[in-house]
Parts: sequence; C-alpha cells; structure tokens
Amino acid sequence: MFNDLKLDAHRPAYLQIRDYLKELIFSGVLQSGVRLPATRELAAILNVSRNTVTQAYQYLEDDGFVQIIQGQGAFVTMQTPQSPQSEKTGVLYDWEAMMTDYARTAVDLDIEKKELKWEKGYLSFKSIAPDPQLFEMDDVKRSFLNRVAVEGEKLLNYGYAQGYRYLLDYLKQYMKAKGVSPDGKDILVTNGFTEGFNLVLSALTRPGDRIICENPTHNTALKIMRLAGLEIIGIPLQDDGMDVEELRRVLAAQRVKLGYLIPSYHNPTGIVMSPEKRKAVLEQFQEYRVPVVEDGFNEELRYSGAHVAPMMALADNANGMIYLGSFSKILFPGLRVGWIMADARLISYLESIKRSLNIHTSFLDQAILYEYLHTGQFEKYLKKARKVYRERHQRAVELARQLIPCRKVWGEGGLHIFIELEPSLDARQVLAEAYRNQVLFMPGDIFFVNPSDGKHTFRLGISRVTPDIMEKGFAVIGEAVRRIQSG
Amino acid sequence: MFNDLKLDAHRPAYLQIRDYLKELIFSGVLQSGVRLPATRELAAILNVSRNTVTQAYQYLEDDGFVQIIQGQGAFVTMQTPQSPQSEKTGVLYDWEAMMTDYARTAVDLDIEKKELKWEKGYLSFKSIAPDPQLFEMDDVKRSFLNRVAVEGEKLLNYGYAQGYRYLLDYLKQYMKAKGVSPDGKDILVTNGFTEGFNLVLSALTRPGDRIICENPTHNTALKIMRLAGLEIIGIPLQDDGMDVEELRRVLAAQRVKLGYLIPSYHNPTGIVMSPEKRKAVLEQFQEYRVPVVEDGFNEELRYSGAHVAPMMALADNANGMIYLGSFSKILFPGLRVGWIMADARLISYLESIKRSLNIHTSFLDQAILYEYLHTGQFEKYLKKARKVYRERHQRAVELARQLIPCRKVWGEGGLHIFIELEPSLDARQVLAEAYRNQVLFMPGDIFFVNPSDGKHTFRLGISRVTPDIMEKGFAVIGEAVRRIQSG
Repeated sequence: MFNDLKLDAHRPAYLQIRDYLKELIFSGVLQSGVRLPATRELAAILNVSRNTVTQAYQYLEDDGFVQIIQGQGAFVTMQTPQSPQSEKTGVLYDWEAMMTDYARTAVDLDIEKKELKWEKGYLSFKSIAPDPQLFEMDDVKRSFLNRVAVEGEKLLNYGYAQGYRYLLDYLKQYMKAKGVSPDGKDILVTNGFTEGFNLVLSALTRPGDRIICENPTHNTALKIMRLAGLEIIGIPLQDDGMDVEELRRVLAAQRVKLGYLIPSYHNPTGIVMSPEKRKAVLEQFQEYRVPVVEDGFNEELRYSGAHVAPMMALADNANGMIYLGSFSKILFPGLRVGWIMADARLISYLESIKRSLNIHTSFLDQAILYEYLHTGQFEKYLKKARKVYRERHQRAVELARQLIPCRKVWGEGGLHIFIELEPSLDARQVLAEAYRNQVLFMPGDIFFVNPSDGKHTFRLGISRVTPDIMEKGFAVIGEAVRRIQSG
Repeated sequence: MFNDLKLDAHRPAYLQIRDYLKELIFSGVLQSGVRLPATRELAAILNVSRNTVTQAYQYLEDDGFVQIIQGQGAFVTMQTPQSPQSEKTGVLYDWEAMMTDYARTAVDLDIEKKELKWEKGYLSFKSIAPDPQLFEMDDVKRSFLNRVAVEGEKLLNYGYAQGYRYLLDYLKQYMKAKGVSPDGKDILVTNGFTEGFNLVLSALTRPGDRIICENPTHNTALKIMRLAGLEIIGIPLQDDGMDVEELRRVLAAQRVKLGYLIPSYHNPTGIVMSPEKRKAVLEQFQEYRVPVVEDGFNEELRYSGAHVAPMMALADNANGMIYLGSFSKILFPGLRVGWIMADARLISYLESIKRSLNIHTSFLDQAILYEYLHTGQFEKYLKKARKVYRERHQRAVELARQLIPCRKVWGEGGLHIFIELEPSLDARQVLAEAYRNQVLFMPGDIFFVNPSDGKHTFRLGISRVTPDIMEKGFAVIGEAVRRIQSG
C-alpha cells in the first residue's frame, strides 16, 4: 500500500494523494473507522513534505471522507458504498435497442466512423481544415490578454444567447463591408456553420419538407438535411453555378420550403457562382417566396478577380436571405464561432432555440476572436493565407491535370480541387487502390444527393500539404486510376 | 466626403479607410471608373500618413474593388450591385407565418423573454450564476499561456467530437474520485449541461414518451423536456428527496422512457437526496430498466457533512445511469464546458449526434479548463467559493426566516433558497409588489410540471449578493407578502 503511487510533477502532490486515498476508501481497502498513517510516516514513504500529506488529509476532511481528531490522527468516516440489493447489481440495459432512429441515422451518416482512416505515414488529401502553421499564436495570445485586461472576470460568467456585444457590432460592420445592408436584419452568434444550419432548419422545416441545394453539395450540410428528415432536391451544377432552368422547373412543380446554396468556392467543386447567375437564382427563389440559406463558406479565400457580392447583398431590402458565416473554417476551427445574419424576426426565434440548446457560445472565444478581428490581425492573416493557399491551389490544379487521368479538374479556388473521372470508373475502387499505397482522399459520392451520381468523382484537400507531397500523392492516385482503367 | 470618417484608435486606420471607401462604393457615391483621391491628398484630409492610405488602397485592390494603375492612381472597378428586377426589390417574406411549432414553443418557454427584467438600481435575487469576483483571472491567464506553450497552434484547429484527450482523461479520474467505476463507460464533452441533456433526449426519446422528474425541478430541464415533446411526470419531493412510494406507483402503472434527477442541492429546493433514498430510487428505476439521467448540478458545492456519492457510484457495475456534469455552473459558465458519462455504447451514439450538431466543443476552452483543473487551481477556487457561499447561504436562511412570512424555507445548500408561502398566496403578486420597490426574484411556478402547483413558491438566488443587500431585499419581499396577505 502507498508505494504504487506515482506522482505527476504538474499536479499538486496533495491532490494526487487525496485522490489515491479516496480510491482506497471506495475500493474498501481503507474501511470506515481505520486510522490513516501518521502524516510524518506517509510523507517518508511517498518522499514528500509532511505539510503535503497534512494538506491531503485536510482536503479529505473537507470532502467528508475522514475526520481529523486533534492529537489522534485522521479516521476514515466514509462508508464504502453498497450497491442497491447486491443480487441485482449488474442490471444491464440494452442500449442498442433503446436508440431512436435519429441517433441511428446520426451514426450511419457519420463519415468519421464510416470512411477509411488516416494512419501514420499515409499521405492524406481528405481534410480541408486550414494549415495551423499559418496561425500566428502570438497574435492570439495578445488578443486573449488584451480582452481579459479590458473585461476581466465578466468574460467567464454567463453571457447572452445572441452573442458578445462587441462581436455582434463588428459582424454588422463586416457584413456592411460586403455590401449587406443591416436594415431590418440582426445577427446571432453560433457554434460554427454546423450549428447555424441546424438552427435554421429547426425553425423553418418539418420532416418531409422539401429543400433545394446544389448537387453535389457540402456533405455536412447533406447530413444535417437528412437528419432533419427533409426531402432533398439537388440541382445540377454548371461551370458558373446551378442550372437555373432546372431550378425554375423544380420551383414551379412543387412546394419547396428552403434553398441552401454555397455561391463562393463551392464545396466540393470549388465553383464561384457568377454575379449574373446569383441574380437569376435569387429571382427564382423570391418568385416563390422560398427563403435561401447562403453558406458563406470560404468566401474570404478570394484568390483573384473582382469582388463578388454575397447573394444577401443582391437581395437588397428584400428579407428572404439567411447568411451563414463562420470564422471556424479558414481561421480557427477549434474555436467554433460562426454567425447567422437574417431578418430580425427570424433571428429572435433562433436566439430562443439557441438558448434552449446550449445557452450561448463561449464568451471567452467570442471575446478573443473579436479582439483579433477588430485589431486587424485577421486581415494580416488573410493576406498571408490567401497567398499560400493560392499557390497550393494553382499547383494542385497543374499537378492533377498532369498526373491524374480524368475528365475534368473542377475548382476556381478554395482549399480543395474536385476530380471528375470517366463515368465508367469508380472512385472508391481508386481510393482502395491508393489506400494500399498509403494515400487517402475523400470519395465524391458523399457529396451527392444520390451517392451513385458521384461515384466517379473525388475531392482532394490541399490545405495542409506541400507541393512535394501533392506530387507524390497525386502520382499514386494517377497510377491507381490507370490500373483500374486497364481493368 | 471623407471628412465624416471618425478613426478608432484600436483598429488599424488603413482598414477603417478601406471599409469606409467600400461603403461609398456600395452606396454608389463612388461609381465604377472613378479615380480615388491621390494618397497624399486623402492622407492630408484624414490626418494620417500617406503610407496608411496606400495600404488601404492596396487592400481595396486585393479585395477586387479598385485597380491601381502605376503613375495614374486607383480606379474603382467594382460595379454598384443591382438588385434583381428592381420592381421586385422589397419582396417581403412573412417570417412569423413560416415558423415551426418547435420555434414558437422555444420562444414561449424562453423565460429571458417572458419574465420581468432587471433594471439599473434594482436588487436582484433572480440569478444563480456564480459570483465572478471569486474567479482568479491570473490562474486562468496562466492556464491559457501554459496550454498554448504546450500545444501551440493545434489548439485552434479542428479537434475531436468526443473531447480534448487530456480533459477526457482528467474527467475519468475525477469521476473515479467520486467513486464511479470507469469500466464499460465513456465520456463525451458537451457545451454545458444544457447541451448534454438535449443530446441524451434526442438519442433516447421520441415525442409523446414519458419522463419522470422531481417536482419541482430545474426550469431549463423542464423547457428541454417540453421542447422534446415529452409527457412529464413529476414526483413530489420530501425533505430527503422524491417520494419513493409515488415513484413505485408511477413506474408500475405505465411505460416510462427515462428519469431525470438532481440528487444534490436540487434546483430549486436545495434538497440533498439521502444516501438511503438514492439507493431506493435507483432500485425502482432499475427494476423497470428505465435509464436515469443524474444531473450533477452544484454537487461540488458541498458545504458540510459526510461525502454523498453520486447515484452513478451506487449503480456500481450496472449500466443504466447517465451522469451529466458541468464546469459551467459554479466555475466558468462563460466557457460552456460540461460532460456526459455513461455506458460506452450510448456515448458512441451521442458523439455522432454531437458531431452533426456542432462538430465539437471549443478546444481552446477545453484546454484552458484542463490546465486549470489538472494544476489544482480548481480545488483552490472551490475551497474559497464553498466558504463564501456557505456563509451567504446560512445568512440567507436566517434572514428569510426572520423577514419573510412563510410556511417553509427550503434548502440545505447551493446558491439559492426556496420559499414556500401559505398556499393561499400568489408569489407572482408578491413579485409584482416587490418589483414596484425595485426587488426582483424568480417565481416558483416555472419550476413545476403544472405551474399552478407552485404558485405560492419562489426562489431566491444568493450567489452574487452581500448580506446587506439580502437584508434590504428580503425586507422588501417580506413587506410585499404582508401587504398581499392583508389583502
């Protein structure tokens, strides 16, 4: 006893001793009434100061496990807990049988659990998470320290469901600089895009309702729409955005509840919807009074060309657009901060739903982010990130054309390119072959409303790879395609 | 033009000038083709360096708003956006009509929107949020800086839905020190209790299912159960916890899906369920294989007496308990970090649901909290907080007995006391009267399954008030009761 306790230098020894003794009490090794060793004695065994042991005993007393009697020592008072009716312990519940369809679907659609996993040494083009090497930790540190200096303890107490006031004001300005009029609109801070989209669907749709999206589209968005029980209608993509004629036909033929679009650097194709098409698409949705969710995904990653206004800016004083923005895509995904901008009446409902789901988004994170944005660190980062990602993207397109036999390399920008193989080929076969050679990417079918429509496509994430790795990895993929082609 | 721009010293001037010019472009004041003032000229007008204006123009070019022609100047290239079919701008959607019942119910049950609001100068006993003056910001700062030094940029990139590995390990130890065996169990980090409870309900219940809880109970939990469409069965409370006979009858009479209990420092009554009753209650639920959600609410705020093990510790190797813990109640509500401990199979489902809802809880927050906990700052805080809150609680009970004519003052601990008036009295009348005298508290009916059962009760939050304020405020409330009593 006592000599199997290994002390961790980063945690106070008295707490480790306290917890160790608690375990001995719970397991029944030290029973009620037993006297703990004298502090001097235990200190010698554990090679700590006597004071450390005294503190451990005091904490045990504070927690109600022992009683310290002056001059006599510390006595265990805690009864080893008895499970109810010992013959019944081990009552086992069948959890699998208890799960709702919702829970089962969430697991079925969880690509983290279903798709091939990265292993050490593998070259991965699966992720489109930003390259953390571009993050300037000193700027983040400064943002934290500055905000703490200004706000103090307040940052750690409950805040408001709608968001951190300064961040809300900043976001209003930020959207204004994209040409979005704040009139009649309001903003709600969310835990990233994912929460934002879930909130909007819960306020506006019921299972069985129809939603229109681009086909293919963001796989997380597809997952969310499926979990909400929606009937998903995918509109095919052309080089400049969705097929407006098809959109017109769909809207005319049936009652549709909502649209979901990614106009800039579309995931997974990388397409930027042209300004003309943005107007035409918006007109169609407005005609039928169908609200449109605009996913601002990677909008900030504009590599070249003229400014393209978000669709919400085009909608002007009409009130049917819902903009979902996020700083947890190219900036800090670990912080989980995004926002919804929409008609103020809608935001008020979403705010109450948000409060019922998780009270609010971390105020500390919102405050750090606000400071980082307001002091111009974001623009500094963006300038650097755009340059790096633009080069990677250009190189990726070149290398893919050179090394991967395919019908088309899609993508004007963003952190990924999208490969369309000859329709007879199966990208999952290519993936299996590449995986044997330790190369990993995202099969395209997961982005399609009907997965079979995308079975000859795949996405290559390039945010965290050097040109060297691209060259090596794309060559393996190209080789895999050729092998499958030659049967 | 240009002279209405007020510069904010905390944001780089070039960004403010950039955004100001963007607004002029969007509003059509500066149209496509127009040359911007020479940098020297604008610098003089705005009283900034020429370099600042040059930077602003470069950013505008980067963003695709202007083109800079060497030796000639910067020319607006951005077209003022045209709304689609100008006769159609102002297409207005009727948002109110589009809301789902879920959204409407969320607003109806949002006490932030429905209850009386605090105004400057008012004495408020509404909140049970911790007193931020007890937070040691230097410890939090150190935790942040230490973690950033260890983990670097990784903290800001995507993490895992289940949680930050070190925090998960810490929580396993933490629960072990409460007597909970980790065998067969797992942990999921959540955005506080609120998200945890929502996750569990979505995995295990469908609208119309029955859930058992204490009556009264935590109003946020009631809201979540109602939003999930559950039939809520409240079991009356006795001094040592719920009425076991009534529980037995309810369980025998009908199929119940889940139990929800707050065994320690129950909200709103402050009751601690006795160890014997914990066993008896657990036995009943196990008999019918009904899982029990144990809300660890304020469990850490034990003021005196022997350690009381959580019900999950009593369940031993049975697997039917679901423990919801939170560090965002007495510690840092602003951070929104809680956890669910339960059978590993259930946790796996909850993890996939969590991923579909918001990817994961802020990794930065989890890392800061881990460091704070692991290095023993939490215990230091707890020692101090317990002492302060114990004194406030004792004083509150004394003062309430002395100043407020009532049937019973409930509560053994926690950050609140619960007042039961004579049944003929209406606490909302008392509140209206007290509010006229600038005193605010939480009417008790919001904690009851049937609000009318609690109309003669109210909760007094005492976490953030001094004895002086209690004395003043309780006197006003007592006076209001007397006035209502005398009709």
